[in-house]
Amino acid sequence: MAHRILHFITDFFVYETAKSVVVKSWSVGIINRVVQLLIILYFICWVFMHEKGHQLRDTGIESAVMTKVKGLGRFDKRVMDVADYVIPSQGGSSFSVITSMVITPNQTQGLCTETDVKLRFNCTGDDDCMAKMGSNLGNGIITGKCLNNDKNTTGWCEIEGWCPAEDDNNLAPSVTGVENFTIFIKNSIRFPLFNVTRGNFPSNLNKDKIRGCHYDPVQNPFCPIFKVGDILRHINQSLDSITKKVGEIGININWKCNLDFNVSHCKPKYFFTRLDAAFENSSGSNGYNFRFAKYYQSEDGTERRTLHKANAIRFEIIVSGDAGKFNTVPFLINLVAAFTSVGLATVFCDIILLNFLKGAEEYKAKKFEEVTDVVYKSANNRLNEGSQMSLKAMEKRSNDSGTFSIGRQESHS
Amino acid sequence: MAHRILHFITDFFVYETAKSVVVKSWSVGIINRVVQLLIILYFICWVFMHEKGHQLRDTGIESAVMTKVKGLGRFDKRVMDVADYVIPSQGGSSFSVITSMVITPNQTQGLCTETDVKLRFNCTGDDDCMAKMGSNLGNGIITGKCLNNDKNTTGWCEIEGWCPAEDDNNLAPSVTGVENFTIFIKNSIRFPLFNVTRGNFPSNLNKDKIRGCHYDPVQNPFCPIFKVGDILRHINQSLDSITKKVGEIGININWKCNLDFNVSHCKPKYFFTRLDAAFENSSGSNGYNFRFAKYYQSEDGTERRTLHKANAIRFEIIVSGDAGKFNTVPFLINLVAAFTSVGLATVFCDIILLNFLKGAEEYKAKKFEEVTDVVYKSANNRLNEGSQMSLKAMEKRSNDSGTFSIGRQESHS
Amino acid sequence: MAHRILHFITDFFVYETAKSVVVKSWSVGIINRVVQLLIILYFICWVFMHEKGHQLRDTGIESAVMTKVKGLGRFDKRVMDVADYVIPSQGGSSFSVITSMVITPNQTQGLCTETDVKLRFNCTGDDDCMAKMGSNLGNGIITGKCLNNDKNTTGWCEIEGWCPAEDDNNLAPSVTGVENFTIFIKNSIRFPLFNVTRGNFPSNLNKDKIRGCHYDPVQNPFCPIFKVGDILRHINQSLDSITKKVGEIGININWKCNLDFNVSHCKPKYFFTRLDAAFENSSGSNGYNFRFAKYYQSEDGTERRTLHKANAIRFEIIVSGDAGKFNTVPFLINLVAAFTSVGLATVFCDIILLNFLKGAEEYKAKKFEEVTDVVYKSANNRLNEGSQMSLKAMEKRSNDSGTFSIGRQESHS
Repeated sequence: MAHRILHFITDFFVYETAKSVVVKSWSVGIINRVVQLLIILYFICWVFMHEKGHQLRDTGIESAVMTKVKGLGRFDKRVMDVADYVIPSQGGSSFSVITSMVITPNQTQGLCTETDVKLRFNCTGDDDCMAKMGSNLGNGIITGKCLNNDKNTTGWCEIEGWCPAEDDNNLAPSVTGVENFTIFIKNSIRFPLFNVTRGNFPSNLNKDKIRGCHYDPVQNPFCPIFKVGDILRHINQSLDSITKKVGEIGININWKCNLDFNVSHCKPKYFFTRLDAAFENSSGSNGYNFRFAKYYQSEDGTERRTLHKANAIRFEIIVSGDAGKFNTVPFLINLVAAFTSVGLATVFCDIILLNFLKGAEEYKAKKFEEVTDVVYKSANNRLNEGSQMSLKAMEKRSNDSGTFSIGRQESHS
Repeated sequence: MAHRILHFITDFFVYETAKSVVVKSWSVGIINRVVQLLIILYFICWVFMHEKGHQLRDTGIESAVMTKVKGLGRFDKRVMDVADYVIPSQGGSSFSVITSMVITPNQTQGLCTETDVKLRFNCTGDDDCMAKMGSNLGNGIITGKCLNNDKNTTGWCEIEGWCPAEDDNNLAPSVTGVENFTIFIKNSIRFPLFNVTRGNFPSNLNKDKIRGCHYDPVQNPFCPIFKVGDILRHINQSLDSITKKVGEIGININWKCNLDFNVSHCKPKYFFTRLDAAFENSSGSNGYNFRFAKYYQSEDGTERRTLHKANAIRFEIIVSGDAGKFNTVPFLINLVAAFTSVGLATVFCDIILLNFLKGAEEYKAKKFEEVTDVVYKSANNRLNEGSQMSLKAMEKRSNDSGTFSIGRQESHS
Repeated sequence: MAHRILHFITDFFVYETAKSVVVKSWSVGIINRVVQLLIILYFICWVFMHEKGHQLRDTGIESAVMTKVKGLGRFDKRVMDVADYVIPSQGGSSFSVITSMVITPNQTQGLCTETDVKLRFNCTGDDDCMAKMGSNLGNGIITGKCLNNDKNTTGWCEIEGWCPAEDDNNLAPSVTGVENFTIFIKNSIRFPLFNVTRGNFPSNLNKDKIRGCHYDPVQNPFCPIFKVGDILRHINQSLDSITKKVGEIGININWKCNLDFNVSHCKPKYFFTRLDAAFENSSGSNGYNFRFAKYYQSEDGTERRTLHKANAIRFEIIVSGDAGKFNTVPFLINLVAAFTSVGLATVFCDIILLNFLKGAEEYKAKKFEEVTDVVYKSANNRLNEGSQMSLKAMEKRSNDSGTFSIGRQESHS
């Protein structure tokens, strides 16, 4: 029993390693080393230096964005300030700056005529308007009546709702001075994995300096104040085209940080994009507009409102972050991958060695040792049985020193 | 010296490859090829075809969503349009459509009675109200007095705040026509890695076509206009249940693009989900409501407001994207993984070969060559020294042609 | 022809396996097993137990957040309720609670004087104001005139815009009672991969229980009602410091779910962070404030407004989720990785075996079999040709039983 356990332990601590054939050939040797070198270079340059394979990465950032728009515009003889033209007012990461408006004042609930030509709310008789009943597109609920100013030619369908209806047919008056508006962006991010927090401007930038600067990718890359006109220039748009055609601008704040270096090198980069570039050539929908109303109440309690159809630029601040720091786990995984990959050179070199080299047959003979199944070839049965016998005979003297060989050699073809 | 360097270089360019045993056995041969075939099939079907292992993936999309609701509803004899029932008005990716409201007009700052029965703000004496002081749940700050209309039975606690207090006990009147409201969604995405931008409707869809269509998963899968009633049908809810119980609907826009094909095949898919399905059976919180006020000022300067408690459906447009394009780096990585994995068949076949096959002992003898440690078995010391001596002797004639062998063969048991 | 095909098939189903050297040495055997054990332990403890390598992960959650603030504050003799101090009112994942305000009532369009000292809008003559023209920072458009109250000393630049201008020089009056405000958070998430939906409070928590509880990390970790004062305590801030210096608080809801266990164990954890910790020491920008206006209309149609400069705390609810569930694909991938990694012990042990062990030369001789290139050493040409001849001679009798050897043995140095 004790002998058995000992035998088992002895067997367990036996060490197995692959038997290798060493080929002294300049051609294969050089090819082998060159391929290995290429694999090592790939790992050093691509995996470790470019892809930072030795670092743990954190892309799940916590980000907070505060914005503040400044600037004064003129609209229809009035001066407009931030409370008038920025919606919503809270200064979040998404906000709209109104660039032109159609204002319909003093609307009250009642009956009046439609105004829209494009939607064909003009009529010659009640039938035209009956056909439009249930339409979602008008300014109010179509009653089915056709109101003719004078009994000849055309009139307009009657609607029930806020009256008078908005007249959207003319060009909306513009807010002037939008190019000079400035957007102050305060962005703070945190990489929770590394517990690193960063702000988009250095803490030594005081109020006066901030007030004085404007962002410029070359001259002033860390100033957090962006002029609307500059942003439009970065995306190659005029204020006119942006208002009529596009409407949405993305301000991307990109944090790519290598935390193996000092954290002060972890700084943001700003990119500007047209977010709806996909609809550039679309005739279906141009620009960005929305309607909102200001509600008033007369002393007698009747509710009035001023409807605003606002054409605006919408700004979206998009923050993305990617930080890396040395960590043993990914480093070891990639190091092991590198070492095992170096072994792949053998696959390539074996193909050359065994097929295209002078003396390939000799290499094959050295690399491959053949053993035939006892039932593989019926013709060889007797011979195989012979070899088995000799094998078993040798097993009995297996403790002999290794000066004999039972290897049977054949070319592998 | 030069000889040494030459020797080093000669050694360096030596090529090592594993010595193999070739087994001519139908059973193991077939098992080996079948296992290899299964591994290759796994890589072709799963890794490359299903998981697109040859592609570089980009899931960090830049997305912009604009929405526009259209439709006219009726509420309490009034006609309501978009400016009245959509909050916020800017047409972003998250917005609420009011489905019913409790309106409390003409509130001014002052003292009045509470109204809520559920929170037990009714009282029989001041003690009841003193106990409620500091409560956050009332319509105003509890003063501690109990106001009885007539000296018998119950009264209500007095509050300081906006008066009269909102009476939330009755059912809120509904906005009719919500099912017919339509939501126009303009979604544009960009895959920054591939610099591909796509919009959720083709640019040849002109204004008239867009106005005329309604989304349908089969008939009209690319129409960007969604009827509220249709959306409710997709999530198996009636307007009534959604208002009272749920309140939040997600419109998922899913972009799954294979950019190896023409970019025009990169089209969105729409899914609709109840975002608060988790609270379906919860008695704690039903539906979605919020309060907002419209403020008025009398000529004498006193401020009045109309408080609105709005029950609403909140829509959230959730955009997710995943694009892939052929790239040599992931392709090579997976190809190498495939090749090395094919080698794993050997592990499985070795187990069969060395244990379950007729002639296993012979295979063992061929596969394993034994070498014993010089101190492993004291009894073999002399023999081992002998083998070492013969080894050293052979080293001296190592340039001889390979017609001798020092291999020692033993069965590995 | 048939013979050829048979020959090809016979060759195809040949099985190749690496020839191994078995070393019976305690030292290497033990080192080998210890290294293998370490690798296995690494996979069991780190890859499978810690990193959950056998699970498919889903981090792309669909999340919906509804919030409701309750509480009554006092501001300047008035009682403020939710409709007054929460902006925006819809109860989304991001909202601001006003903590103090500068109110400028009864503004109308016109001409008046600037008020700001810090921006140096005071003047002694028109030249001072001409220099300020085009400034974005004032309350209105600088006309260039200097308005002196009396002809001596200083005056203020004239502006065109909403008059009278906001006077921001004094401290803003506070809203009292903010610490007692409560925030109810209803968060529902869905892991689309596993189709699991969860809510942040159990469905058996009824309305009365919810009303009565306050979140506490130890006592009441699943109560969805958070007191503002408690949140401030969690991030070590007083209301005063938060208002003046910080302004943004993140409420992180973290879902880390192991779906191999019952889904009822999938519960949220709450963390509170100062989102703008990066600007703690910055003199450039402190706190969080925004301006909004309430618009009124006189009976004669002139528009007036009340401008509010609100200092606020902004709350952002940030939801992150990470669920894992057993899946055969990642399990098999990591299992295969584990098995192949165990083989890496050989690399380490070979170095010891062939360099540092007594008898290393013998092991080298056993492990490496040498074959020399036919043109490798010109001096050996004749001999090599001889070996090739003998090789070819042997190929003719390749079906002989394996009792001969053509292996040439040399030490690999």
